[in-house]
Amino acid sequence: MKTVTLAHGSGGQAMQQLIAQLFMHAFDNPWLATQEDQARLPLDVLTKSGDHLAFSTDSYVIDPLFFPGGDIGKLAICGTANDVSVSGAIPRWISCGFILEEGLDYGTLERVVTSMAKTARDAGIAVVTGDTKVVPRGAADKLFINTAGIGAVPHHLNWGANQVAPGDVILVSGTLGDHGATILNLRESLGLDGELRSDCAVLTPLIQAVTGLQGIKAMRDATRGGVNAVLHEYAAVSACGMEINEASLPLHPAVRGVCELLGLDALNFANEGKLVIVVARDKAEGVLAQLRAHPLGAEAAIIGEVVERKGVRVTGLYGVKRTLDLPHAEPLPRIC
Amino acid sequence: MKTVTLAHGSGGQAMQQLIAQLFMHAFDNPWLATQEDQARLPLDVLTKSGDHLAFSTDSYVIDPLFFPGGDIGKLAICGTANDVSVSGAIPRWISCGFILEEGLDYGTLERVVTSMAKTARDAGIAVVTGDTKVVPRGAADKLFINTAGIGAVPHHLNWGANQVAPGDVILVSGTLGDHGATILNLRESLGLDGELRSDCAVLTPLIQAVTGLQGIKAMRDATRGGVNAVLHEYAAVSACGMEINEASLPLHPAVRGVCELLGLDALNFANEGKLVIVVARDKAEGVLAQLRAHPLGAEAAIIGEVVERKGVRVTGLYGVKRTLDLPHAEPLPRIC
Repeated sequence: MKTVTLAHGSGGQAMQQLIAQLFMHAFDNPWLATQEDQARLPLDVLTKSGDHLAFSTDSYVIDPLFFPGGDIGKLAICGTANDVSVSGAIPRWISCGFILEEGLDYGTLERVVTSMAKTARDAGIAVVTGDTKVVPRGAADKLFINTAGIGAVPHHLNWGANQVAPGDVILVSGTLGDHGATILNLRESLGLDGELRSDCAVLTPLIQAVTGLQGIKAMRDATRGGVNAVLHEYAAVSACGMEINEASLPLHPAVRGVCELLGLDALNFANEGKLVIVVARDKAEGVLAQLRAHPLGAEAAIIGEVVERKGVRVTGLYGVKRTLDLPHAEPLPRIC
Repeated sequence: MKTVTLAHGSGGQAMQQLIAQLFMHAFDNPWLATQEDQARLPLDVLTKSGDHLAFSTDSYVIDPLFFPGGDIGKLAICGTANDVSVSGAIPRWISCGFILEEGLDYGTLERVVTSMAKTARDAGIAVVTGDTKVVPRGAADKLFINTAGIGAVPHHLNWGANQVAPGDVILVSGTLGDHGATILNLRESLGLDGELRSDCAVLTPLIQAVTGLQGIKAMRDATRGGVNAVLHEYAAVSACGMEINEASLPLHPAVRGVCELLGLDALNFANEGKLVIVVARDKAEGVLAQLRAHPLGAEAAIIGEVVERKGVRVTGLYGVKRTLDLPHAEPLPRIC
């Protein structure tokens, strides 16, 4: 079996071959092809005067590397693309840093890179610059990826948690907790195979479908920490309270099952393809309709509202309101 | 002893605290302060019409974390800043992704972050967006960092390996192999403590001192794989040969000692603050003088020339010319 060796990260011939045979081929684009130490990107095609540059990064350490609905390579494009996209920008260029463990199956690396390249290409994103490090066996677990992404925020958009005000309405773009429940099922061998699937997706098309609408105050994707973490972020920045209704939360039956089985709350589960959007009350139905008209937002729902009284609260199925604390930690590590 | 826990990477309260207490404090700047999922950067202050965006990334996995002349945090700024700078751009914004091992001493993380913040601030670079993952004990060795950097390449600069032509002259900006020899000495306990020191430095000021000069064809910093790797890159892209003189290579005596002791070639040793520049012959003395006038280039030297005959060759101290192959791998892993 061909494996990754320390030489693949050494700056010598083996590394040149890895770059030429795998990365340059998979990510093929004119900026990468120059093989300089940096990509040189034509800004004029991306931006107009007054636009801002959206810039975001994430590292991906998910275990296992492959899961229903995706893999670490797809995730490394989707996650960073979404962090750029929720500003209203269209992610265009991405950097990619691999940290590989000596002895990693070369075929595994190829599968991951191929998936990354396909996800990027489908989303109109070019992987324009990169780096590979190989560490000795035991110094890292298989494969980690970092990506950083760039896009232009049109000058007329200024979404942000600081715009959120009492009376606004809180929407989610679809079912909650699918990614977290899928990984939990795999890692804890809960036996729900076939019913659970990560929602891992590039959300740019869904977001672009609503950028022309009035009334959007803030938009984030709910990843680690789930919708609950985003609600706490909105609450902290806006100094408002967030109140949601348990009955309104869109949940797949299998995710609901995992939650009941383990006594966990899907609001804390990671998503990799869901938005939490705050919208002015009189524009909320319009935004909801537009989201639902897009395949990535078909199960979008209004889940609550912004209030003056600080804190994050949920009204349960029997009408009892309780405080939703931000947990000290998520149910499990290496979820993304 | 306070240590890093899995909760610090979970998206919950512990992570919020780590971000607020350590990262936001150390990297303090207005773009980071908005706490959105992406930094939104005012492009108009950075670029003029026709400029390109220079974008580069590197992961840092160096072992040990601290070494004479630097640490992984300083390195993570210098390395990426230099990869952006060698295009002629001034690096302005950097992203930062940490992968931390559960159980890492919190004080170690603080030292690294503080060093990173100081290096960035001294160089006029803002760390504007970031991410933290924590993996269970044994899934990573202590601490890895990825940075991605952005700067603007002025539209009149177009340095690149594809400009290199026979007759051009090859310069280096100072002594070779200091970083590699320093790490080798530490890892192999060679006992040369006190004499070796990494050259880890942000080279932007040195490079900016020559951007106004005519005749510069190509510029790269010689990191992993050393000057030899850069010469092979130049040779491959330009389809020319590279010939250098061993007697011209600037070397610290202690580095020369390490090489003789182990039978290794300093041309293959990593640097973290040295440039390899190709200049038109009639402009070479001017560029050399300008480099030497700057503290970071005081020991700059002309080391050889570009020729028609393909390959990379070195003329030894006794006048014998030999081919310089690119080794399959560097002397040691985790050098940067």
